[in-house]
Amino acid sequence: MHPVYYKEGTLKLIDQRLLPEEEIHLAYTDYRKIAEAITDMVVRGAPAIGVTAAYGIYFAAEEFKNTSPDAFEQAMTEAATVLAAARPTAVNLFWAIERMKKCLEKHRHLTNVAATQALKKEADAILREDLEMCRAIGQHGNQLIPQNAQILTHCNAGALATAGYGTALGVVRAAHEAGKNVHVYADETRPFLQGSRLTAYELHADGIPVTLITDNMAGWMMKQGKVDCVVVGADRIAANGDVANKIGTFSLAVLAKYHEIPFYVAAPTSTIDFKLKTGDGIVIEERSPREVTHIGEIQLAPEGINVRNPAFDVTDHPLITAMITEKGVLKPPYQQGIAKLGGNR
Amino acid sequence: MHPVYYKEGTLKLIDQRLLPEEEIHLAYTDYRKIAEAITDMVVRGAPAIGVTAAYGIYFAAEEFKNTSPDAFEQAMTEAATVLAAARPTAVNLFWAIERMKKCLEKHRHLTNVAATQALKKEADAILREDLEMCRAIGQHGNQLIPQNAQILTHCNAGALATAGYGTALGVVRAAHEAGKNVHVYADETRPFLQGSRLTAYELHADGIPVTLITDNMAGWMMKQGKVDCVVVGADRIAANGDVANKIGTFSLAVLAKYHEIPFYVAAPTSTIDFKLKTGDGIVIEERSPREVTHIGEIQLAPEGINVRNPAFDVTDHPLITAMITEKGVLKPPYQQGIAKLGGNR
Repeated sequence: MHPVYYKEGTLKLIDQRLLPEEEIHLAYTDYRKIAEAITDMVVRGAPAIGVTAAYGIYFAAEEFKNTSPDAFEQAMTEAATVLAAARPTAVNLFWAIERMKKCLEKHRHLTNVAATQALKKEADAILREDLEMCRAIGQHGNQLIPQNAQILTHCNAGALATAGYGTALGVVRAAHEAGKNVHVYADETRPFLQGSRLTAYELHADGIPVTLITDNMAGWMMKQGKVDCVVVGADRIAANGDVANKIGTFSLAVLAKYHEIPFYVAAPTSTIDFKLKTGDGIVIEERSPREVTHIGEIQLAPEGINVRNPAFDVTDHPLITAMITEKGVLKPPYQQGIAKLGGNR
Repeated sequence: MHPVYYKEGTLKLIDQRLLPEEEIHLAYTDYRKIAEAITDMVVRGAPAIGVTAAYGIYFAAEEFKNTSPDAFEQAMTEAATVLAAARPTAVNLFWAIERMKKCLEKHRHLTNVAATQALKKEADAILREDLEMCRAIGQHGNQLIPQNAQILTHCNAGALATAGYGTALGVVRAAHEAGKNVHVYADETRPFLQGSRLTAYELHADGIPVTLITDNMAGWMMKQGKVDCVVVGADRIAANGDVANKIGTFSLAVLAKYHEIPFYVAAPTSTIDFKLKTGDGIVIEERSPREVTHIGEIQLAPEGINVRNPAFDVTDHPLITAMITEKGVLKPPYQQGIAKLGGNR
């Protein structure tokens, strides 16, 4: 399952808002529409957003490659700004845009057309590397998963959140492929229901045993010994190991600690914000109240009610048992391990 | 707001499944339909279920009062069995039925018609006492609520869960009436959404400040210092103080403990199951998967997915800071306090 891919001159995105009822693949060539698709959550998941934004930069170059070098450069700066503003929390978005900008700088001495070709190759590389990273995360993470493990996950850090295969669900897939007889509890993940709509969908489609629960059942499942470990993704990781991820992740980490259940974060190193000292500095996106008060056209709450709708929370690093990256498994103290990764990048 | 009341020869129930969009008051006279209304959650909330079942017994007597004493007795036994089977977890249901049975026994020497009149008086008394109990719980609980308190609640232990006024929300109402400038965070309470549909509805209607959040945001609100205390209701309390309440309550109690926030349970003493030693013995009702996979006709999860849907969980008594009953505030050790109440009953 590939939520973002390039085909015949267009960027294709699975419209994840329509899953699980319909699987529609939309085609994009305009970077502004690509930015909108990120904002509107046609595509979501930090790595998939990064890949999408990279192609957004490439399509901006395609659009302006026949203008003057100055106009081209100005248009590219504008495109980078628009794409970076599409979602505030996922660091992979900024990481991918930065990488595309560096690529552009490196090829500035060439014609616009040649630079545009280089940007296409860079976006392709980001997509390909994302797939490789997911496989590597799966291989490293698999070592932490026991036989017959019951794994709780939150939101969708799956194939649908990446170029394919997934981060947290990459670990699940690798364990499943290794014949470990794993079973997944998927939190439905209100308000956007990435767990029921996406995680349950992709695991069910792949024949990996999965049971859907509401978010508030997770602690009770832990108490009844139904959860051997928790594996989640990440939207941004600070230099000290604090992790921003989908709202509800922090509560799961506290519940796992209380029950002495390992709590793992699976994410590519592109999710690490090396300049950010702690999670306190992470901007938490607040989304529309309508996501909480309505499902489709059905109204769930009284008219005019106050709502909070933070899309993410921050899990303090002491609550995290290990971090699974494409470069290996990090264990506490994270500050040192992360600093080392930063040096190697 | 009164979700259950007697009017002109019928039992009236607000159909809580239609809130907040419509407030429809249904009329019942058949105990079988009353049992169905309990099962289908037209009426819910342990105290309101108790009151409803009491009137169910009375309407059974009305139906059979012109039969022979033997037929009458047999019909009443049958009605008690049907009503007791309507929901498995709320002890008030069994408590109210037992009380009605005792009333019947006491008046057995009278004619069926006279016994039926006595049952009507008893059901009226249960309703009236429920309202008085809620007021008393509110008065006792108010002493625990500081000025400007931000109070988190789960599910609906409100007017709509009782004959009126509420237990957990009775505490909120008493603090609000005392001018304490309280603000409530209401968990939406998946899957049945009692928080968004009912708690938000009744507080908003009464002009008490309320903010709706999804269940998985509660821990994050606590972390950000937005919650001064948690107040929830109870469906059954064991003799050692373990509390069965709406699924998600246990997780909140763990999160409150982690953040050193007081966690209060507000419930009438009729919720205490004196014969039940600990929460381990509580039967947890498992409801239809459709509550999790659908909202109305909208499908949220892939076809054929496995689902768990326990309606309740059990919170261990060490996680509970205090219990607020109509007879006063209980503090640990609960076993002694509860035993004392049992003796006084």
